[in-house]
Amino acid sequence: FLPKRNELGLVAVGFSGGQCKPGVDAAPMALIESGLVNQLKDDLEYTLHYDNQVHAYSDLMPASDPPHRGMKNASAVSAVTQKLSSQVYEHAKHGRFVLTLGGDHSIAIGTISGTAKAMRERLGRDMAVIWVDAHADINTPESSDSGNIHGMPLAFLTGLATEEEDKPFGWVKEDQRVSVKKLVYIGLRDVDRGEKKILRENGIKAFSMHDIDRHGIGKVMDMALGWIGRDTPIHLSFDIDALDPMWAPSTGTAVRGGLTLREGDFIAECVHETGSLVALDLVEVNPSLEEQGAAETVRAGVSIVRCALGDTLL
Amino acid sequence: FLPKRNELGLVAVGFSGGQCKPGVDAAPMALIESGLVNQLKDDLEYTLHYDNQVHAYSDLMPASDPPHRGMKNASAVSAVTQKLSSQVYEHAKHGRFVLTLGGDHSIAIGTISGTAKAMRERLGRDMAVIWVDAHADINTPESSDSGNIHGMPLAFLTGLATEEEDKPFGWVKEDQRVSVKKLVYIGLRDVDRGEKKILRENGIKAFSMHDIDRHGIGKVMDMALGWIGRDTPIHLSFDIDALDPMWAPSTGTAVRGGLTLREGDFIAECVHETGSLVALDLVEVNPSLEEQGAAETVRAGVSIVRCALGDTLL
Amino acid sequence: FLPKRNELGLVAVGFSGGQCKPGVDAAPMALIESGLVNQLKDDLEYTLHYDNQVHAYSDLMPASDPPHRGMKNASAVSAVTQKLSSQVYEHAKHGRFVLTLGGDHSIAIGTISGTAKAMRERLGRDMAVIWVDAHADINTPESSDSGNIHGMPLAFLTGLATEEEDKPFGWVKEDQRVSVKKLVYIGLRDVDRGEKKILRENGIKAFSMHDIDRHGIGKVMDMALGWIGRDTPIHLSFDIDALDPMWAPSTGTAVRGGLTLREGDFIAECVHETGSLVALDLVEVNPSLEEQGAAETVRAGVSIVRCALGDTLL
Ligand SMILES: [Mn+2]
Ligand SMILES: [Mn+2]
Ligand SMILES: [Mn+2]
Ligand SMILES: [Mn+2]
Ligand SMILES: [Mn+2]
Ligand SMILES: [Mn+2]
Repeated sequence: FLPKRNELGLVAVGFSGGQCKPGVDAAPMALIESGLVNQLKDDLEYTLHYDNQVHAYSDLMPASDPPHRGMKNASAVSAVTQKLSSQVYEHAKHGRFVLTLGGDHSIAIGTISGTAKAMRERLGRDMAVIWVDAHADINTPESSDSGNIHGMPLAFLTGLATEEEDKPFGWVKEDQRVSVKKLVYIGLRDVDRGEKKILRENGIKAFSMHDIDRHGIGKVMDMALGWIGRDTPIHLSFDIDALDPMWAPSTGTAVRGGLTLREGDFIAECVHETGSLVALDLVEVNPSLEEQGAAETVRAGVSIVRCALGDTLL
Repeated sequence: FLPKRNELGLVAVGFSGGQCKPGVDAAPMALIESGLVNQLKDDLEYTLHYDNQVHAYSDLMPASDPPHRGMKNASAVSAVTQKLSSQVYEHAKHGRFVLTLGGDHSIAIGTISGTAKAMRERLGRDMAVIWVDAHADINTPESSDSGNIHGMPLAFLTGLATEEEDKPFGWVKEDQRVSVKKLVYIGLRDVDRGEKKILRENGIKAFSMHDIDRHGIGKVMDMALGWIGRDTPIHLSFDIDALDPMWAPSTGTAVRGGLTLREGDFIAECVHETGSLVALDLVEVNPSLEEQGAAETVRAGVSIVRCALGDTLL
Repeated sequence: FLPKRNELGLVAVGFSGGQCKPGVDAAPMALIESGLVNQLKDDLEYTLHYDNQVHAYSDLMPASDPPHRGMKNASAVSAVTQKLSSQVYEHAKHGRFVLTLGGDHSIAIGTISGTAKAMRERLGRDMAVIWVDAHADINTPESSDSGNIHGMPLAFLTGLATEEEDKPFGWVKEDQRVSVKKLVYIGLRDVDRGEKKILRENGIKAFSMHDIDRHGIGKVMDMALGWIGRDTPIHLSFDIDALDPMWAPSTGTAVRGGLTLREGDFIAECVHETGSLVALDLVEVNPSLEEQGAAETVRAGVSIVRCALGDTLL
């Protein structure tokens, strides 16, 4: 689905407004400083399209941002993700692989809407999304307890939640959405009661940690990729909190019982091997949360990105 | 096998006489204070039958307790487990699920004898026991090196060790026993030479860590539950030292190379899914052994109990 | 392949010249002091043939040792491994299992050349090598970046690298070599670009961590041992850095994403179970690197040796 195998569009998003803990906006710089960009160029031989800046989108921040349907920072998140959507769309339209370094997971509203639209225009195909996360991030504003939008991106992206007005989030139109039938979860282990209902009622494919323990990650990836099928472009959205805190402690909502680093890398490798991967988000690395664990979490993030972009052991 | 799905009898046993390290008697309070009882009521919607006390059974402690067939504290352990047996039997006879929070593993002489008798009376069926442990706990008084009774409960419960006199342990009668054919081990990795012989000679089904590595925990659970078959009530006796010290360091006889927390939870979930589980022991959490690891060990214990009682990820 | 099951030749090699970090020469003493030799005698009932010394081979060290084809300490490594080769050969010729405690992995030039020759003479058979390692250790002097010979032993042992002159390494003759077809890797995850090419071009069987995640270690061992087939004596060369740094941090070139201790033990157990194992190297334990992790790394090493020599859980 990518005409030129080695063209990579990189968007660095220093945004933390989808949740309440400062610091996740520092992740793109930490990932880049630990060598990620150089490795992509030198080891993996990508041609980078990168504007050399971490976008904070300060000019888009509203003066006041009162709760809307219980959502915190709704105007800010909407403005940032709408802008990001067009940035990602630009890269994807030109046939580049799009790598977005977050930032919290609310930014996926921008990245996935951008690639979904570009894939429809460029290939005439509906895109699939593989969402690797401890959480389902599919609360509607009404089902959410916290009002943090990083727990809602998939509700807006699948159309389970909609808005009439352009601001906030009404700008996400049909051609920017993904079907619940094309969404696959891996790594779930902390799903709200309302979300469990949404998953069940919409028949959404989800592999929890229980499934991974039952089948092994090898078989789970066979099943996940089999569900999607060939001939479907894939957007991989990887929340670092999918990994166990043992390997990725420095993240806002860590949950025990997660993926090993090996399993995380394996997932990324398998998705790469399909040849259908067109975009990757890496989100929720928060280097400010753990003095000791930050470096390890950043290293884990770098490893996931490398694997998804074609690094192999042999 | 439980007429009313949500009736739960809880017995908190603050007893440490089956081994030599003080502190394991503090486990029930630590588990309860970390929210276990509330979670069982609120999240999992159980109706609790609980006398609101941690039983130390001080009134049953003998003035002197000399070694008997090499066993340490034989009179105390016998008196406590005989009393516990009747408490557990009462709950089980009324069709309640019985959750016992230990205490060291010697208390299983009380819990299993109580449920085995109740199941025979109420259902006319022999009960199976799934024993999740690093150790086999099936030494006879004679084969034991240490004389600690927490290494012997299954010898008395299967009738491999017997006593003529009521005290100690002669009170365990045929209708309170379980067959060696209905015993399944999971997680073994530190088995005495004499115990290996017992397992072999009696054809006892045992899945060691080697088996789990070979087949994966998913297949091992299929085999373990297949061995037991349907239509058999199951008593799950879970020694926290089955988990690797990485997740459960605060226990008296920790052994490397154990279950991950994920595997521990998975075992409990699978046994719950059978619909045949009638009782659970959680034993050998010792919050006093590790300053740092105690909280994590207690959290692991809470997690195991929740999973065995029906908590699910999706 | 061993006429007397319980005859064990032990060679303790305190040599660190195949790489640059001092301390790996202290491993044999640390392993022995932690009880390994006694356990082999008492628990596993081996008759030991051991000269009761850790060989430093000081008398073989050359006065000057300039780089040769980029190799560091080429004369020293050549002299030590040639001497070691004859020591190992002596044990193997007498039908003893040969256990060599290193030392860095360059010493495998000595051990494998010794057993390969003895097996050809004694059994008329070509020996297989199972190389458990994070690294492929098959660089030629020319493909190596570092010049450290512990990254090259398999190049000399397979004949991919050769020397005309006896010194250095010309002494490794055809009857001391192993075929690339009889070499199987397990645990690879840090392989140089040149090495990847060597593995591909020579059709060498290699199971990386990715393969272990895909299939599980049980299936990987089936495939590895199936590749070798029965009726082939096996030399197991175990680099402790195959284990994840979580279990074996105290080693010179630790790499994330490695084997769990359980997987390491499992590999050793499976190879033992074949009945074809004739020799074991345990290398790259470096007790001086990590103050805290040294004891754990030594314990992991002892565990691997015990498992390979027949210790079982049940
Ligand atoms: Mn998450
Ligand atoms: Mn997320
Ligand atoms: Mn135990
Ligand atoms: Mn026990
Ligand atoms: Mn190595
Ligand atoms: Mn090596």
